[in-house]
Amino acid sequence: MIYVVGHKAPDTDAIVSAIVFAEFLKLKGIEAQAIKLGELNMETKFVLEKFNVYTPETLNTLNAGEKIALVDHNESAQSIDNLEALNIEYIVDHHKFNLKTEKPLNIRAEKIGSTASILYKMFVENNFEISKLNASLLISAIISDTLFFRSPTTTEQDKTIVSKLNEIAQIENLENYSLDLFNAKSDLSELSVDQIIKLDMKKFEISGKKIAVGVMETTNPDFALNLKSEIIERMNEIKSEENFDGLIFCIVDILKEQNTTFAPSEFEANICTELFNADQIDNVTFDLGSLISRKKQIIPKLETLN
Amino acid sequence: MIYVVGHKAPDTDAIVSAIVFAEFLKLKGIEAQAIKLGELNMETKFVLEKFNVYTPETLNTLNAGEKIALVDHNESAQSIDNLEALNIEYIVDHHKFNLKTEKPLNIRAEKIGSTASILYKMFVENNFEISKLNASLLISAIISDTLFFRSPTTTEQDKTIVSKLNEIAQIENLENYSLDLFNAKSDLSELSVDQIIKLDMKKFEISGKKIAVGVMETTNPDFALNLKSEIIERMNEIKSEENFDGLIFCIVDILKEQNTTFAPSEFEANICTELFNADQIDNVTFDLGSLISRKKQIIPKLETLN
Repeated sequence: MIYVVGHKAPDTDAIVSAIVFAEFLKLKGIEAQAIKLGELNMETKFVLEKFNVYTPETLNTLNAGEKIALVDHNESAQSIDNLEALNIEYIVDHHKFNLKTEKPLNIRAEKIGSTASILYKMFVENNFEISKLNASLLISAIISDTLFFRSPTTTEQDKTIVSKLNEIAQIENLENYSLDLFNAKSDLSELSVDQIIKLDMKKFEISGKKIAVGVMETTNPDFALNLKSEIIERMNEIKSEENFDGLIFCIVDILKEQNTTFAPSEFEANICTELFNADQIDNVTFDLGSLISRKKQIIPKLETLN
Repeated sequence: MIYVVGHKAPDTDAIVSAIVFAEFLKLKGIEAQAIKLGELNMETKFVLEKFNVYTPETLNTLNAGEKIALVDHNESAQSIDNLEALNIEYIVDHHKFNLKTEKPLNIRAEKIGSTASILYKMFVENNFEISKLNASLLISAIISDTLFFRSPTTTEQDKTIVSKLNEIAQIENLENYSLDLFNAKSDLSELSVDQIIKLDMKKFEISGKKIAVGVMETTNPDFALNLKSEIIERMNEIKSEENFDGLIFCIVDILKEQNTTFAPSEFEANICTELFNADQIDNVTFDLGSLISRKKQIIPKLETLN
């Protein structure tokens, strides 16, 4: 039995990839079960409800020695709490790597817009049929992770794969469907400020410093911008609660492809102006312009921090 | 332009995989060149001469910013000297992982007997034709790395792949061909004791200690066993020259599938008896029985060192 898990603070690609890779393993004759690390965001909830898919169970630890497959991540800081005690059998991912294992394992990683795109290729290579449901889920994850091809992480392959998948899924208007996803993701009315910051927050170790980057991709940036003082206050609390050296919160306007970032202290403010060449709007707010991809733009620049 | 490189102290899988993966990239429309890190062993020399293949150039550093593909390894200690200054674009490997990158990259790793086996699958998945020459090279690498299916790293897939490849390569008697390879590998008459120890020596960081493991796979173990005192003396010199905390040298009888290991000091002797449950033959010689795979048996046990 292999547990398949996406990263903490799961997004649609993490959840869908766990569900679909578990299906892939079953087609290979391997018993597999998708699990998750944290609650669904509103977009993923929308997708799973639309296609009437089960929500994977949240399991923050597994028994020592259990087999696990990591999808859409590979760094232990973003993974299940007791990863060190488990046997990593598979990784399917499209992020940078920070991985140390004791044994050989199966890895499939590509520079591509989503983990879902890689899974499509794996189904094709193995001559496995892609069901209408799985095609719809994979399309949802690709649209979500590439911001419907707006993100600089998008490749020509992602576009071709969505069009191939839609021959199966038959979603009538992909443009409209992408707006449905982004609007669902942008509905934060039921969330606390703490939940908003942590919705898609990832932790990194950079030059010995613990730095977290929260990203809110939204069609309605004003919602968060208007909560500035509450968000900054809570960010400072989170920093001390979680012993972060730094924490930034990026509000990405999906349709305008523009990033406005909150920096709660001088440390992060310097990162914004010096590493990201951002324009300062006020003492805690920075215009990062078209730097909208954490993976391809924000983190590589952060990695140059001394 | 992407440089394709196998590990230091290259074996047949490292060299062949670099040559064939460079071909794969060219078929993808990507300019690529195989290079190597160190001299060919006698087996690989035999293979390249038999099939009249060019010997990749040795390049121990590349200009900063150059693109590189790592085959048959992923750990920087086993790779090109200035790896940190280069952009890793691809990894194809079947070893444990110890990898940290700043950016996403393409990785294909499997729990399988050789990197060459993975390359076969990649050609098939991409509908790329495998030439008679490449089929012969890949077979040679699989036979070499799996000790013609004797190594516990061997999978059913490796056997199937060799039989598929031999439909193209048409090597008349694979059993005889494997003996040709192993006898070539076992001809150490022109090598110094230093070269013998370093022929297939890999360095690892384990619990903060630098430990190196040399392996000699041979059909003629007596040759090295008779050089015991010279080898032990030179091992102690290498330890201080390279600041190793530990160094063991495993003489693996390919045909009997038996490992006799030299341990130059008490530190390594304790590893042999305690971690490997070896029988002590004399103060520096240990019978490790059927522990013949560094990757699957020796290193996982070494990793349990405190």
